[in-house]
Amino acid sequence: MIKRFIYGNPFNTEAVIKELPIENDTPKYGKLDLSEGFTYTYDMKDDIVFGLGENIRGINKRGYRYVSNCTDDAVHTEDKVSLYGAHNFIIILGEKTFGLFFDTPQKIAFDIGYTRQNELKVTMPEKDVNLYYIEGNSLNDIVKEFRQLIGRSYIPPYWAFGYQQSRWGYRNEEDVRKVLDEYRKNEIPLDAIYLDIDYMKDYKDFTVDTDKFPDFEKLVSDMKKEGIRLVPIIDAGVKIEDGYNVYEEGVAKNYFCKREDGTDFVAGVWPGRTHFPDFLNEDAREWFGEQYKFLLDKGIEGFWNDMNEPAIFYSDEGLSEAFSKIEEYKEDKLDVNSYFEFQNLVKGLLNNPDDYKRFYHNVDGEMICHDKLHNLYGYNMTRAAGEAFERLVPEKRILMFSRSSYIGMHRYGGIWTGDNNSWWSHLLLNIKMMPSLNMCGFLYSGADIGGFGCNTTRDLVLRWLAFGIFTPLMRNHSCSIRPQECYQFEQTVDFKNIIDLRYRLIPYIYSEYMKAVLNDEMYFRPLAFDYPSDSFAIHVEDQLMVGEGMMVTPVYEQNAIGRYVYLPEDMLKVKVKGGKLTEEILQKGHHHIDISLDEVVFFIKKNHLIPICEPALNTEKLDTNNLTLIGYVDDSVSYKLYHDDGMSKDYDRKDNMINIQVENDTVISDCDNINFNLKIKREI
Amino acid sequence: MIKRFIYGNPFNTEAVIKELPIENDTPKYGKLDLSEGFTYTYDMKDDIVFGLGENIRGINKRGYRYVSNCTDDAVHTEDKVSLYGAHNFIIILGEKTFGLFFDTPQKIAFDIGYTRQNELKVTMPEKDVNLYYIEGNSLNDIVKEFRQLIGRSYIPPYWAFGYQQSRWGYRNEEDVRKVLDEYRKNEIPLDAIYLDIDYMKDYKDFTVDTDKFPDFEKLVSDMKKEGIRLVPIIDAGVKIEDGYNVYEEGVAKNYFCKREDGTDFVAGVWPGRTHFPDFLNEDAREWFGEQYKFLLDKGIEGFWNDMNEPAIFYSDEGLSEAFSKIEEYKEDKLDVNSYFEFQNLVKGLLNNPDDYKRFYHNVDGEMICHDKLHNLYGYNMTRAAGEAFERLVPEKRILMFSRSSYIGMHRYGGIWTGDNNSWWSHLLLNIKMMPSLNMCGFLYSGADIGGFGCNTTRDLVLRWLAFGIFTPLMRNHSCSIRPQECYQFEQTVDFKNIIDLRYRLIPYIYSEYMKAVLNDEMYFRPLAFDYPSDSFAIHVEDQLMVGEGMMVTPVYEQNAIGRYVYLPEDMLKVKVKGGKLTEEILQKGHHHIDISLDEVVFFIKKNHLIPICEPALNTEKLDTNNLTLIGYVDDSVSYKLYHDDGMSKDYDRKDNMINIQVENDTVISDCDNINFNLKIKREI
Repeated sequence: MIKRFIYGNPFNTEAVIKELPIENDTPKYGKLDLSEGFTYTYDMKDDIVFGLGENIRGINKRGYRYVSNCTDDAVHTEDKVSLYGAHNFIIILGEKTFGLFFDTPQKIAFDIGYTRQNELKVTMPEKDVNLYYIEGNSLNDIVKEFRQLIGRSYIPPYWAFGYQQSRWGYRNEEDVRKVLDEYRKNEIPLDAIYLDIDYMKDYKDFTVDTDKFPDFEKLVSDMKKEGIRLVPIIDAGVKIEDGYNVYEEGVAKNYFCKREDGTDFVAGVWPGRTHFPDFLNEDAREWFGEQYKFLLDKGIEGFWNDMNEPAIFYSDEGLSEAFSKIEEYKEDKLDVNSYFEFQNLVKGLLNNPDDYKRFYHNVDGEMICHDKLHNLYGYNMTRAAGEAFERLVPEKRILMFSRSSYIGMHRYGGIWTGDNNSWWSHLLLNIKMMPSLNMCGFLYSGADIGGFGCNTTRDLVLRWLAFGIFTPLMRNHSCSIRPQECYQFEQTVDFKNIIDLRYRLIPYIYSEYMKAVLNDEMYFRPLAFDYPSDSFAIHVEDQLMVGEGMMVTPVYEQNAIGRYVYLPEDMLKVKVKGGKLTEEILQKGHHHIDISLDEVVFFIKKNHLIPICEPALNTEKLDTNNLTLIGYVDDSVSYKLYHDDGMSKDYDRKDNMINIQVENDTVISDCDNINFNLKIKREI
Repeated sequence: MIKRFIYGNPFNTEAVIKELPIENDTPKYGKLDLSEGFTYTYDMKDDIVFGLGENIRGINKRGYRYVSNCTDDAVHTEDKVSLYGAHNFIIILGEKTFGLFFDTPQKIAFDIGYTRQNELKVTMPEKDVNLYYIEGNSLNDIVKEFRQLIGRSYIPPYWAFGYQQSRWGYRNEEDVRKVLDEYRKNEIPLDAIYLDIDYMKDYKDFTVDTDKFPDFEKLVSDMKKEGIRLVPIIDAGVKIEDGYNVYEEGVAKNYFCKREDGTDFVAGVWPGRTHFPDFLNEDAREWFGEQYKFLLDKGIEGFWNDMNEPAIFYSDEGLSEAFSKIEEYKEDKLDVNSYFEFQNLVKGLLNNPDDYKRFYHNVDGEMICHDKLHNLYGYNMTRAAGEAFERLVPEKRILMFSRSSYIGMHRYGGIWTGDNNSWWSHLLLNIKMMPSLNMCGFLYSGADIGGFGCNTTRDLVLRWLAFGIFTPLMRNHSCSIRPQECYQFEQTVDFKNIIDLRYRLIPYIYSEYMKAVLNDEMYFRPLAFDYPSDSFAIHVEDQLMVGEGMMVTPVYEQNAIGRYVYLPEDMLKVKVKGGKLTEEILQKGHHHIDISLDEVVFFIKKNHLIPICEPALNTEKLDTNNLTLIGYVDDSVSYKLYHDDGMSKDYDRKDNMINIQVENDTVISDCDNINFNLKIKREI
């Protein structure tokens, strides 16, 4: 049951796809204060608070404060309050269990027992908000209702469930071909190679640097013959350069964000001085979306949208103010205060909040300051692409994910969790973030495996892969000095074995992904969602349910020989080492499980099945007509396998969903093309 | 067995107090390459590598690289390679077990399975080093031999084992008195209040700002009547200001570090432009040490030495180079590369390695570039103080700890672990760092409880206190906007109960500290040191042995309801809540222990005793003549209690060490003044 409340005059974010009636009263629980801005407070007892999507800290968000304010900040330390996305959905689990979605582009502050240990306080500067209050029979129910409210999540092509390699630093065609060669030489599966900003001519969107990539189409096509997709990046800022068509068209059509005086706002980003397309303007959005055709026509089938918080290195205004201020510092002898002012002035040029107040969007003819709509910018950039793909290639799925996002964007693309670091703590953050993202509709997601910034270590990459094989987006990405492709490390066979396992699990991962999307459910769930009455399970922060029948327990500590695991019920432990699966039934309760660097462990719930296949060098080569069903089963059990061409969009076709029924040792399915091999444990 | 090897012509750091004969061969294990600088390599198998004192990452240092290079950097993220100290002692535990001490002020790089997973590689630019190779019967043996080599660790006064409160932000006498008032009002014990840089007149060492502290002596004396010591900070840099005696004397006597041209080097730090005392010059060291008399004479009995890496915000040269470079940037339009050059230029003014090459020390008449001796600077600042205290107040212990350090300094003072942050990960880092510091001789140590930078949370402070009660230095220190004194949070009784427990444990903590110092042993030990043949225990990173009979298992995760604990043998679990101790015998193996925010849990080894007393408002008021002995005992057990006046220095007096023998239910001791109450469990 969802109730909608409106306060003030909220901007229509289009996060929600259902028009609900407006209630006259206030949400059932909690208190509202609209005397100054908007304040919602709720007295917590032992409540656990879930949600907030892409954010720092735990699955349980209690004990800290968070601010929805899309921010380009790679240093995700515990003190930060904002990451790249703004996902204003929370669920309170306690005496009362309910969900709240604060639909507004404002900078909302969620104080969840930070200032006062038992007070949840949600504040925003203006009272303009669509507030949705959601009740349900369970946590999973509440999420489902919310997800139905915001619409079906984005579905990528099947190949996007393969392993993907990226690096900011592939300089040219030779570098790209070498990545594939090395992966092949080491027999490690691969489905995509990414192109970071260097593929463009002078960082200009929708260009290719032909000095570095003399025959881009041929490269794309050669790669595709090998089962490899090239995935180029698109940045938000359009370089100011005479003769550059995107720039000139954007200026001519008034499709760039404007200063108050009507001139085009200038932001310094990778290409130097740029203009920001006005993604809040429907016409500009359509126009920008059409630009992707340039690369689609070259055979490209996937993109990632970056820098769309939008990140601003400096503005013309900010730089000029800074330099004149620096002039003053020079004339006086600096004292320690003015010295740190000087330091902060220069550092503060980056993503300066003042710059977000310097430009405007044209929303249906009304000029609205960017500052008021900031959290919607990345969302609408990706929407521009998603809407264009529907027009340009309606028959085909295109891979699309974004750095910045707001709820609503989940319909147009996934997200990756932005620029992280090669820190063990960021592997753990990745684990904790996944279910929170799923609640908010972002299902196609994953972190930069191995860490984007800072030099990684072999063991970190291995442990991260061992979790990454379960994330729908499984991409190794880095900008560090130390190369991070799997073949750069000793004993590449350990990497191969873990990535092989990903490919073996794709029948399960893809089916569970598709079912989660089609049924508005979560692919990753905290244990609390499946075992809400287990007083231990509800607090577990480092184990996740994956799909209907699996639990994962990643190792995220350096030099660990294993880890503690809590089983909320008897489960089948599957340990995978060197390509070999070993199953063992373990009883409900606490266990210490040895998991060495070259091993992966996962668990299967009783009376559930996991379909697996043989590994292959890419998704195209996967033989999904021969499946092994593993599980721990009392007597009969069923499974729904999603099986389609992985590219077309008639997702709801009945024959995509294959029913598998296991009775004793017999498998009955409604698809004759698939052979099933049974590998089931029955006794404890 | 220790062997000493000399390569090249190493600088005498005076880290070592024994003159060992020089061996002609090379260390028994590993390979040396002196063809270019110094390289030591050792092929590891499953080895665990301990040591490196104050450093990031685990107790087991394997899997990363570390550089000994004393650095003022508060952001102790996993990618950092240097913190405030340089502690070049490691122990390899494996097929071969041995210790290595690389005694040289150079920037040594320890690559411990980072570049190649099984290679330990120690490199330095010059081959000049005293290398000590240490064998022993056990890890504890190796440490003991090493500690005997480097001399007895510093012993603070007894009151320094009490709880201490600090903040960068106590502005004046009123603020200081308020801290005591609030602690008293909440009945929370306290032994010291710290004075950060604001007590000084314009940040000038050995001055007091009489506007803020009109009668400093009276404040010191009033506080002492209440059992509270005031502990002022001393910074390394001496402000350049005409008429300021320390500056004028230093200049006149040539006691400041010089530029190559013989002029006094200028470094910008808190007081603005300063000179650095030349602590490597014996005369200058003596002179600077004498300055502490100014505060000793006012009744001060403890100090902390800060900014002595030395931190440099900027140098005259660096600033002038930067401003002329900025001039260039201004004239050209910045592109993205030059923009980040500009950003990095300004940021790079802080602790710029080039600045360390701009000044020189006068070592016995020879001018040596600071860059070559950098890691010895903080050490010798604290040595200046320690040597002066011996002359000025020979009969009395003075509290002294430092931020920067090198092995050798442990004889003159403790260290705190520098500017950390209010991050849960820094609580864990604190736990892991303690035994590593102990190996290197630093026993009087602790972290800024609650975190120095960033805003803390109530639960973090409580969990950090629950570990901090076991660290010899137990100080809450902060610079954050959110106040962090215990009385600033809700339900102060929870804070009181935890700190009360510290005071109850002081008979044990003080005895174990004194015995560890007097016997050259470790107060904090990894489990590996006590259970080297337990293949699980040797990998445990988050439990510590404290003194001879205790194991601690701190909770370091937000919202955790408890934690997993490994018992290497049957132990007595002691849970403390609301002042009540509850004991339970637990069996060897894995356990999940519930530990709520207001609880502390510790474990007692079989056949060991922990003496505790009743809590009091400060150490002076502790009644240590009435002790309760808690333990888990088969039949007979003994304990050595250290009991003295806590202030004088005849540490080895025989009657300071009281033998306690428990036979069945009878306590026999060689001290008649102490009454013992027995609280012993016998059966499992």
